[in-house]
Amino acid sequence: MPTYTVPEKEFQFLLHEVMNVSEQSIDGYAEMDADFTGAVIGEAGKIASEMLTPLNAVGDKQGCTLENGFVRTPEGFKEAFDQVREGGWTGLDMPEQYGGQGMPYVMGIAINEIFSSANQAFAMYQGLTHGAASAILVHGTDEQKDRWLPKMVSCEWTGTMNLTEPHCGTDLGLMRTKAEPQKDGSYAITGQKIFISSGEHDMAENIVHLVLAKIPGGPEGIKGVSLFIVPKFLVNEDGSLGNRNGVTCGSIEEKMGIHGNSTCVMNYDGATGWLLGEEHKGMRAMFTMMNEARIGVGVQGLAQAEVAYQNALAYAKERLQGRAVTGAENPDGPADPLIVHPDIRRNLMEQKSFAEGARAFALWGAHLVDRSHRAGDAYAEGLVSLLTPVIKGFLTDMGYDMTVQAQQVYGGHGYIEEHGMSQFTRDARIAMIYEGANGIQALDLVGRKLAQDGGKHVMAFFDLVKGFIKENEDNEALKAGYLEPLKAASKDLQAAGMYFMQHGVKTPNAALAGSYDFMHLFGHVCLGLMWARMAKAADAALKSGNTDPDFYAAKMATGRFYMARMLPATKMHLARIESGAEPVMALEPAQF
Amino acid sequence: MPTYTVPEKEFQFLLHEVMNVSEQSIDGYAEMDADFTGAVIGEAGKIASEMLTPLNAVGDKQGCTLENGFVRTPEGFKEAFDQVREGGWTGLDMPEQYGGQGMPYVMGIAINEIFSSANQAFAMYQGLTHGAASAILVHGTDEQKDRWLPKMVSCEWTGTMNLTEPHCGTDLGLMRTKAEPQKDGSYAITGQKIFISSGEHDMAENIVHLVLAKIPGGPEGIKGVSLFIVPKFLVNEDGSLGNRNGVTCGSIEEKMGIHGNSTCVMNYDGATGWLLGEEHKGMRAMFTMMNEARIGVGVQGLAQAEVAYQNALAYAKERLQGRAVTGAENPDGPADPLIVHPDIRRNLMEQKSFAEGARAFALWGAHLVDRSHRAGDAYAEGLVSLLTPVIKGFLTDMGYDMTVQAQQVYGGHGYIEEHGMSQFTRDARIAMIYEGANGIQALDLVGRKLAQDGGKHVMAFFDLVKGFIKENEDNEALKAGYLEPLKAASKDLQAAGMYFMQHGVKTPNAALAGSYDFMHLFGHVCLGLMWARMAKAADAALKSGNTDPDFYAAKMATGRFYMARMLPATKMHLARIESGAEPVMALEPAQF
Repeated sequence: MPTYTVPEKEFQFLLHEVMNVSEQSIDGYAEMDADFTGAVIGEAGKIASEMLTPLNAVGDKQGCTLENGFVRTPEGFKEAFDQVREGGWTGLDMPEQYGGQGMPYVMGIAINEIFSSANQAFAMYQGLTHGAASAILVHGTDEQKDRWLPKMVSCEWTGTMNLTEPHCGTDLGLMRTKAEPQKDGSYAITGQKIFISSGEHDMAENIVHLVLAKIPGGPEGIKGVSLFIVPKFLVNEDGSLGNRNGVTCGSIEEKMGIHGNSTCVMNYDGATGWLLGEEHKGMRAMFTMMNEARIGVGVQGLAQAEVAYQNALAYAKERLQGRAVTGAENPDGPADPLIVHPDIRRNLMEQKSFAEGARAFALWGAHLVDRSHRAGDAYAEGLVSLLTPVIKGFLTDMGYDMTVQAQQVYGGHGYIEEHGMSQFTRDARIAMIYEGANGIQALDLVGRKLAQDGGKHVMAFFDLVKGFIKENEDNEALKAGYLEPLKAASKDLQAAGMYFMQHGVKTPNAALAGSYDFMHLFGHVCLGLMWARMAKAADAALKSGNTDPDFYAAKMATGRFYMARMLPATKMHLARIESGAEPVMALEPAQF
Repeated sequence: MPTYTVPEKEFQFLLHEVMNVSEQSIDGYAEMDADFTGAVIGEAGKIASEMLTPLNAVGDKQGCTLENGFVRTPEGFKEAFDQVREGGWTGLDMPEQYGGQGMPYVMGIAINEIFSSANQAFAMYQGLTHGAASAILVHGTDEQKDRWLPKMVSCEWTGTMNLTEPHCGTDLGLMRTKAEPQKDGSYAITGQKIFISSGEHDMAENIVHLVLAKIPGGPEGIKGVSLFIVPKFLVNEDGSLGNRNGVTCGSIEEKMGIHGNSTCVMNYDGATGWLLGEEHKGMRAMFTMMNEARIGVGVQGLAQAEVAYQNALAYAKERLQGRAVTGAENPDGPADPLIVHPDIRRNLMEQKSFAEGARAFALWGAHLVDRSHRAGDAYAEGLVSLLTPVIKGFLTDMGYDMTVQAQQVYGGHGYIEEHGMSQFTRDARIAMIYEGANGIQALDLVGRKLAQDGGKHVMAFFDLVKGFIKENEDNEALKAGYLEPLKAASKDLQAAGMYFMQHGVKTPNAALAGSYDFMHLFGHVCLGLMWARMAKAADAALKSGNTDPDFYAAKMATGRFYMARMLPATKMHLARIESGAEPVMALEPAQF
């Protein structure tokens, strides 16, 4: 059975030694001293290890079942959800006004990682609710907020996002679900939505669906899409539950993974809904929750990589197989542990250096969201808008690859379901697809975000990298191992951006054909920057004679691995980008 | 439901325009004219598409079940196996003396690809039998050959390979299974073997297990391992089946994929076995079948990539979503097909250029085996021994990645089981693990094969590349698009080899820490060479005014994609290799 231990020290190092959160003048940050964050993370870790981790395999094995329109979640899920609710974890970073704890998003993201590592399918019930509640928070009327938010913040009612229809996923302009205006100001929603995570289940009293639909007579395509609140049970004036609404679960999907989460086909048959935000501005409202959700999904990639790594590492230390080429390291045993072998070590170091770098990146992204939302920082808002597709696409692609590598450490034992390594890869796979498939993230990055506001945000990113290198150029501990590779990688990223500028306007395909590589190139530079920042903090701690030199020395070495072994990917991505659109587009569809 | 169409034209192009098989003076090659190979491949394709493909999802869904020691295979498997047997497909490249058809291995590998694309789990029953029969063919006495081979060639009896035990997979020296000599010259085999593919099932009258075990009193470790023939049913003098032997299936494993194949725990309880080959030389005998099996497993990686690609391509042409950035290409429809989008095109081109290059590589490997076995060509034997770990490791890693990419084309529809794209990735995953996990392939390549016979074989490979470039340097059609990138990639490979030579002797870890990257670097150079050869043939066909210019033009363009977009990976691998062992080995195990 796989285990999970919260990487508390890693979180604390990032929050307090790299990001110095409690010193930032952002609403809610002053309270986040090391004792406080340590207590919250430690407590979440306990829930994750003791309650959610054992349920992960149960969820995978049992899945969800639909009978007479009623979805049964795996044994133990409901009880665990009750405990998560009771502990106040569901409203951690939600406003106190609605029953939340008002903590910064950076803490929300940390807890999100922890719960996702332990049980991604379970964490999704809460995650979707959080996204839906955020959309109501930003776009709802005061009455809507008062009506829906308290129960959603507490997860007494859960939430969903309804976008996809059988014939349209990415291209929502093709949507057919209709919303007919009713005399009482409500709408009658009719249509079918698919791939609705947590669409129907037995863990909450009510489910609040946010549904994209078209009001007849509105503009064509994506410009005529509006967003609606459609509850499973209507809610009476006094807040009690009323009649069942005209929305039912038609079937649940058999999937590669996340079996513990019910992925539903939802049928809306004149269901009563209320407009959220403005008419025909549904996409804008949906994107509020999409952007935040995308960082959350990026974290899922990291989370599965982390837990898979922890188990691969334990196996590599314990499983005796072969002898170190440099001489037996366990001479009294029948063989040496796997970890003595350089290729196993390479594999583990890739996982470790990715997970630690990715965590820094995700927390930085969340911190930028806090600066934007809690301190009105337009610079941070622009930067995180640029980085969001990178966090989502790069972290989920790499996170998936790392779960595959972790599985490989187990050999044949990784392929059978018994050890749980297969589940990590099967669960991680979805994160590359949902909330906008990663190709769409790359398109968003290159087609929209790069040029946004005259390219201001990407210039800001480059200034950040340059500034860091300049500030630290005299630090011998960083120079060769960190600053030089970061500089080289950042140059590759700039060259790629330059290539797009020079060719993309005349030949849009020249930019788009390189978009996926650009997203990965960008991701590596971001992790390079994260590692340089972490190394700076670790070096400072070592020089100050901090109490745990082993931790900081390991940090320095892990970062050097990333810079030496992972960053060289930027050269490859640049070469691929600079080969342009011709090789990609040379064939006519009929020639395939 | 996924479909499969045999890439007959691709096979024919490789066999007759690139490899010119029927002109080679190798036993059995003269018969292989285009009509003949076309007929065989076409017929195999029919069986694959019509019979094996529909059973693929059935096998995945139903899996195998164990009841009272009896394993039931999925519905339809037995009947399909009967038909494959009756068609003579099981002994295609086996000697006529034992009922085979005596065709070259290159044809065997082609058919292997076809059946594996259609249904990997099913093809394994035959594949394992082939491997076991090959070992008996090479190491058996005449009596053993006469007794076992005719029924194994026809697959009336199937075969297995029993290596792994619960506590040892890679490190077989730790093996505990015992073989006690009996008075009649047989041995009593006792022990437990795990992960035995096709270990027990209902598709054949008898199962011939090849089992590695230790004869008490023999040398310690791997040097004391012998190989035994242990049938499920003993065989009487007259060839009829006798008593049940002391071997039973203890349980079957729940796996990530290949559910249609029974992966068994096999318990040997004083089972009667006969020594195959010499005492304590079991590993040598096993490697006979391992090397050949490794090429076959490499082909499985390619095979899953091919079928996944075919389905992704069909979906990309059919699914309407979004508009081409350069203007609507399906203006009368609600949207353009996915294939207009550059990033979808990039994804498909990666799959296509990989599958076609990999097929050329696999057939070339098989051809080298033919030259070695059928023409006693020591040069070919050395070369294929070097290339075997590359074929196995590179083709299965890349093949898996390509199935993941194919799944991505489907978006959410790729994650649900309904469309079969998830099965391709789940099935493909095993090929990176079995027959020696890919890290072991890399170790074999760098630790053994590179330096074998004084490095003669790798020098021969470089000469081959150099020779090709020199011979064709005046061909303007190849120069920029093919020869230059091939030269650059080959230089990277040589530089990596040089790095190992300079550092590996003093610091073995410096070579081993780079072994995995070297395997991939080598694989890319091989596919680059394959593409250069294919381009040469395609260019010649175009210049000669061949009848299907579209096919050859597409071939040229697909190859240019590989050279421009895939080969740049060599630079990354070289940089990683040249960073040496330090970043990889810097941490002590306790520091992880």
